Amino acid sequence: MKKIEAYREKVNLALKRFLEKKLADGKYSPKIKNLIENIIEYNLRGGKRIRPLAVIFAYKCFKDNNEKAVIDASICIELMQAYLLIHDDIIDNADLRRGKPSMHKIYSVDGDEFGKSMAILAGNLCSHYAYDGILESDFSDKEKIDAVKYIDWIAERENYGQALDIIPGFDISEDEVMKIYELKTATYTMQGPLYLGAVLASAPKDMIEKLQDYGRNIGIAFQIQDDIIGIYGNIEETGKPNDSDIKEGKKTLLVVKALELAGENDRKFIIERYGNKDISKKEINRIRNIIKDCRALDYCRKKIKSLIDGGKESIAGLKLRDEGKS
Amino acid sequence: MKKIEAYREKVNLALKRFLEKKLADGKYSPKIKNLIENIIEYNLRGGKRIRPLAVIFAYKCFKDNNEKAVIDASICIELMQAYLLIHDDIIDNADLRRGKPSMHKIYSVDGDEFGKSMAILAGNLCSHYAYDGILESDFSDKEKIDAVKYIDWIAERENYGQALDIIPGFDISEDEVMKIYELKTATYTMQGPLYLGAVLASAPKDMIEKLQDYGRNIGIAFQIQDDIIGIYGNIEETGKPNDSDIKEGKKTLLVVKALELAGENDRKFIIERYGNKDISKKEINRIRNIIKDCRALDYCRKKIKSLIDGGKESIAGLKLRDEGKS
Repeated sequence: MKKIEAYREKVNLALKRFLEKKLADGKYSPKIKNLIENIIEYNLRGGKRIRPLAVIFAYKCFKDNNEKAVIDASICIELMQAYLLIHDDIIDNADLRRGKPSMHKIYSVDGDEFGKSMAILAGNLCSHYAYDGILESDFSDKEKIDAVKYIDWIAERENYGQALDIIPGFDISEDEVMKIYELKTATYTMQGPLYLGAVLASAPKDMIEKLQDYGRNIGIAFQIQDDIIGIYGNIEETGKPNDSDIKEGKKTLLVVKALELAGENDRKFIIERYGNKDISKKEINRIRNIIKDCRALDYCRKKIKSLIDGGKESIAGLKLRDEGKS
Repeated sequence: MKKIEAYREKVNLALKRFLEKKLADGKYSPKIKNLIENIIEYNLRGGKRIRPLAVIFAYKCFKDNNEKAVIDASICIELMQAYLLIHDDIIDNADLRRGKPSMHKIYSVDGDEFGKSMAILAGNLCSHYAYDGILESDFSDKEKIDAVKYIDWIAERENYGQALDIIPGFDISEDEVMKIYELKTATYTMQGPLYLGAVLASAPKDMIEKLQDYGRNIGIAFQIQDDIIGIYGNIEETGKPNDSDIKEGKKTLLVVKALELAGENDRKFIIERYGNKDISKKEINRIRNIIKDCRALDYCRKKIKSLIDGGKESIAGLKLRDEGKS
């Protein structure tokens, strides 16, 4: 754990260094400088940095030299996340991010539309910065090209997944929900970072595939667990609200499965009330109970277990090269 | 001219081929397929393709082999433009683009906010596709890396320029307007494409700088000319409205210069009425006359001439390698 902490610190420093160099672009105008300062503040608000850490650890499965380069490159995935979060928050009309105003809220003092416009641009900038992060790192041209291709692949899937998620209507199958999870969460939370680390280490193709498979499984499991917390979690423990998924009508496996398994009256109740911002506490509790009683919650928990088992199996035998050294 | 027509056709074909390959991503869901189809329709609506043509001609100043590769790579700048236009139209609340609904309008049947959300994602996808365009073309890793770096540089400046343009208030100097023109128009209309072509041809550094300088000058001249058309143009000849810049309060050199040169009453009138959607035809005509009478229009015309002269000087002596062949 101490080791993870040390890497997290190194990632934070690399990210800070990279973004502060961007401030030079602010020479265009004090207004641009202010925009870049907001982007810096947003990126350095904290966050667990699990994605860059996954890049670093995947890299270390195959190589243990050139550590500085992989840390520098790993920040691209954090910048990519900032881009996606800034745009997601516009789409979801979310006011807060990591306990502070979302990017469009920072600018909404001059009107909501202006706030969203500036946030579109700020998100775009983080996306372009992400590519820069790779391009400026100390890898061979071949490794950089492979990494940039992959960044592209992650970003495209991410936007496809988000589109699928926001297209209205609940006529959605378990398969489609799993696809959204794969595209929107697994790709860039786990699968992408692991692949990126492996590619930067010029790992053998079959090994990369194993890591990809692991990342896909664990990433989807992570999302389902997150959904459970989003409905049944203890706010004080998790720091996350446990009613917003229900209020916002989030398309989770929990609710899609409940719509399949629950009795007719309960089904009707979910269709009518799930996703209504004015839903009462009592009604929220009834939805919690329906999902539990019809065994949709059990189904999701089993799914998590089988995904984790599948993931572990994919990488059985894979070891960090410097394991045991410290 | 025949030659330009032939290249334009080749660019269109390359763009179509590239985008149709993306349709395979639609396997995720018919909803994604539909989104990609909308992106294809949007990109193939027409347009003069001057940017990819500029890439090709700059390339041909230095190399005359590998033509297919440079045509394939040149589409990246067209995809980049689609990305910028889709997002610009959200920001400007513009309903039409190339005579058809803007991207957010295509989706606004399910609500304006949903339309804008989908357009954010569609724009993002075009941005990522643009990088793909370079990465998939037949150049060396070194040339691709240089090109991708430059695409990044263009895109970042573009977003800075757009931010500077939309930040409210008319407390803007001639220098700042020229900066917006450089960042928002010159970079990706001329300077960027020319540089990109030169980089893909591995041109000598001093030559690249000359082309850059040329592109900057011509690009800014192009924007000022466009502004003049935007106020004094004949709609039937230009196909562009000649009142929307005034109604929308566009920060042009024309108006910024008029605010500097006009008498107190005229200045007050501009500040009060410029940018008001309910401005009358008579008031629009008065603004046209003020800009003319205070010699701001003359000033802009002289500026265009000196920019074009400066541009020509930068590339004196530079010739297409295959000039005279056809």
